Amino acid sequence: MDLEGREVVLASGEGLSYDHLVVATGARVRRLGVPGEDLPGVFHLRDLADAVRIRKFLEKNHGQHAVVVGAGFIALEMAEGFSLRDMAVTMLYRGDLPARRFGPSVGQKIKDHLDQKGVDFRSGTRPTAIAKTDHGLAVTTDRGVFEADVVLAALGVSPNTALAEAAGLALGAAGAIRVDEYLQTSRPGVWAVGDCATTHHRVSNQETWLPLGDVANRQGRVAGENIAAGNIRRFPGVVGAQCFKVFDLQVAAAGLSADQAAKAGFDPVSVEIRGLSRAGSYPGSQPIWLEMVADKKTGLLLGGRGVGVEGVVERINVIATALFAGLTVDQVGYLDLAYAPPFGGSWNPIQIAAQKLEGKLA
Amino acid sequence: MDLEGREVVLASGEGLSYDHLVVATGARVRRLGVPGEDLPGVFHLRDLADAVRIRKFLEKNHGQHAVVVGAGFIALEMAEGFSLRDMAVTMLYRGDLPARRFGPSVGQKIKDHLDQKGVDFRSGTRPTAIAKTDHGLAVTTDRGVFEADVVLAALGVSPNTALAEAAGLALGAAGAIRVDEYLQTSRPGVWAVGDCATTHHRVSNQETWLPLGDVANRQGRVAGENIAAGNIRRFPGVVGAQCFKVFDLQVAAAGLSADQAAKAGFDPVSVEIRGLSRAGSYPGSQPIWLEMVADKKTGLLLGGRGVGVEGVVERINVIATALFAGLTVDQVGYLDLAYAPPFGGSWNPIQIAAQKLEGKLA
Repeated sequence: MDLEGREVVLASGEGLSYDHLVVATGARVRRLGVPGEDLPGVFHLRDLADAVRIRKFLEKNHGQHAVVVGAGFIALEMAEGFSLRDMAVTMLYRGDLPARRFGPSVGQKIKDHLDQKGVDFRSGTRPTAIAKTDHGLAVTTDRGVFEADVVLAALGVSPNTALAEAAGLALGAAGAIRVDEYLQTSRPGVWAVGDCATTHHRVSNQETWLPLGDVANRQGRVAGENIAAGNIRRFPGVVGAQCFKVFDLQVAAAGLSADQAAKAGFDPVSVEIRGLSRAGSYPGSQPIWLEMVADKKTGLLLGGRGVGVEGVVERINVIATALFAGLTVDQVGYLDLAYAPPFGGSWNPIQIAAQKLEGKLA
Repeated sequence: MDLEGREVVLASGEGLSYDHLVVATGARVRRLGVPGEDLPGVFHLRDLADAVRIRKFLEKNHGQHAVVVGAGFIALEMAEGFSLRDMAVTMLYRGDLPARRFGPSVGQKIKDHLDQKGVDFRSGTRPTAIAKTDHGLAVTTDRGVFEADVVLAALGVSPNTALAEAAGLALGAAGAIRVDEYLQTSRPGVWAVGDCATTHHRVSNQETWLPLGDVANRQGRVAGENIAAGNIRRFPGVVGAQCFKVFDLQVAAAGLSADQAAKAGFDPVSVEIRGLSRAGSYPGSQPIWLEMVADKKTGLLLGGRGVGVEGVVERINVIATALFAGLTVDQVGYLDLAYAPPFGGSWNPIQIAAQKLEGKLA
C-alpha cells in the first residue's frame, strides 16, 4: 500500500489509485497458542462463516459435549447456544468469574445462573494442549483433561492492523489505528473505522479501543459523511455501553468501573442496589442488581452496570445517555422517567442508586 | 386553615400549630355531569378504595358488559381490566382517537389494537344520561343508547385545591397550587406536592401540571429534604415522561408534541419511523413506531412518543434523559447505547429517528 502516492497495491501487483482510503480491517481472534488448536472440531468465532462452519460440524458429528475456553460475552453466548442444542457444556477460564469486564458482583450472578443451567464453569483453568482421541477431542489443562466433541476458543480479539502498520500509520490504544475526531488516521486521506480503530471515551476523556458492532456502524457513517462532504461531523465518542444475554439473564454496563475510574484520575465511590423490574405490586416483577459509580470531587456519574432477568439493558441505556450528557448523580436521582407499574416502580432503580450514591459523596 | 398564625383549623374546630405545612390534597376525578352519575354500578377510579368497590360490585353482580366513558390511560387500562374478566367492553369517547395526549398516529395504533381485542370503541359519542333498567344500566348518548352492567367514568382529574384556595394560596397552571423550585407555595412555611401542585417543564421552560405518581413521589422527597434541612434541593422539573400498557401494547411519550412545541415558541419539525425492538435477524422482533420532534432553530430535541409490543418504554426513557440533559438531535443520533441482537439492532430506532430529523433541520 503506497500511501504517499495515494495508491493501494494489491497482492497481484495491480495498483489502485484513491482520493480517500478507508481502512476497515476489523479485528482478529486471539488464539490459544497451544498444540492442537488447528485440529478439526476446534473453532474460533469471528464472522458468519465461522458460525456456519460450527453448525455444520455439529450437525454432521452429532456433538454432545462442548468445551468453551474463555468467559467473555462470546464465550457465554456460545455456552448458551451449545446448551440449547442439548449439549453438555464445560467452560474453562483462567480467571475467576465470568464476564470480567462487568465486575465480580455481576460475574458471581452469571456464575450462579450458569450453575442453574447446568453449565460446568471451571475457573483458574488454563488449556495447555488439545489432542484427537478415538471419540473426539481432549483438552489438557493445568487442572485435568476435558473430553469434548467440539472446542470453542473465545479469548477475545485484537485489532487487525498488519496493513496499517506496514504503511506506517500511527497506532494508539490497544494497538488499534489512531484516528482523530473526524476518524482520519495520521495520514491525510486515509480513514479508519470499526474494530481496527481507536475511539474517544467521553467519561475517561482518554483514547480507548471498543471493538463493538454498533460503534463500528456509527464510525462508518461518520467517516462516510466526512469523506463525501469534507469533515462535517465529529465522532462524539463512546461511553462504553455494552450488553449481552446469557440464558435468562440480561447483562449490561456503561461508563467506568470504580477501578477504571481511579486509573483515569477520578476519586470514585460506588453503590450496589437490588431494585425491581416492575412495580412490587405488579405480577412477574424480577430483581435487578445495579452498581453505580460517581466521582467524589465533582459528583459526576461515571458508570453503571447491571444484571437481571428483565429491565436491565433499558436502565443501562438511560445511564449511558446520562453519561453521554455528563450528568451529575444529583441530576440522575431526579430524572423524569416514564413510570407505570408494568414497567417499574414509581422510583426507578436508577434514581434509587443515584440518590444512595449522592449520600456517599457528602 | 389560618396560615398567618401558622395554625391549621380542623373541621372539629381544633387548631393545630405548625412550623411547616405540606399541602398534599391530590387531585379529584372529573365528573360526567349527567343525570344518573351517582347510581349504583357507576364508578370513578381514583384510589385503591374505588378499585376495591368496583371489583366487589363485579363479583356480586357477575357483570358481563362494561361501558367506559373516556379514552385516556385510566380508561384504556380499565377497558383491558374488564376485558380480562371476560366482559364485553364499549368505550364512549367524545373525541376521535384514544390517548389524545399521545397524538393521532399513536392513537390510531391503539384504536386498531382495541379492535383486535374486541373492544367496541365509539368515537364522537357523548353520554347525556345514565338510567337504571330492569337488567342493569343504560347510558344514553347523542349516538344511541348503550346497555351496561357497570359504567366507569374516566374523564381525568383536576387539582384538588379547595383548601388552598380558601387559604388564599396562589394558583398556577391548570389551577394547581403554584410552587417555587423548592416546592414552597406563595406562603412561607407552606409547601405543596403531588397532584395538587404545579411543576416546571424543562423542555417548554413553562409552568405545567403533570399529575403522575412518580412526579408526586419526587416532589414529596424534595419538599421533605427542604423542610428538614432548609432549602437544600431544587426540584429539577419534569420533561413530561409517561407511559402505560393497554393489552399487548406499550405506549410512552416524553417532551413536547409538535403542537405543544409550536405553542411554547419553538419552530418544530417532526419525523415518524418504524423501527424494530430486536435485531431484524433475531427471533421475535416487533415493530416500534417512534415519533420525534426537534426545534429547527436550535436543533434541540423537543420530544418523542412511541407505541409497540415491546421495547417502547425503554426507548422513551432514553429520550426523556436526553430531554432532561438538553441534547440536540445530532447528539442523539450518535448516542452510545448498549447493543446486542436480543435487545435491538446496531442502530437504535432513537438514533435512526434523530438522524432523519437532523436531515430535516438543514
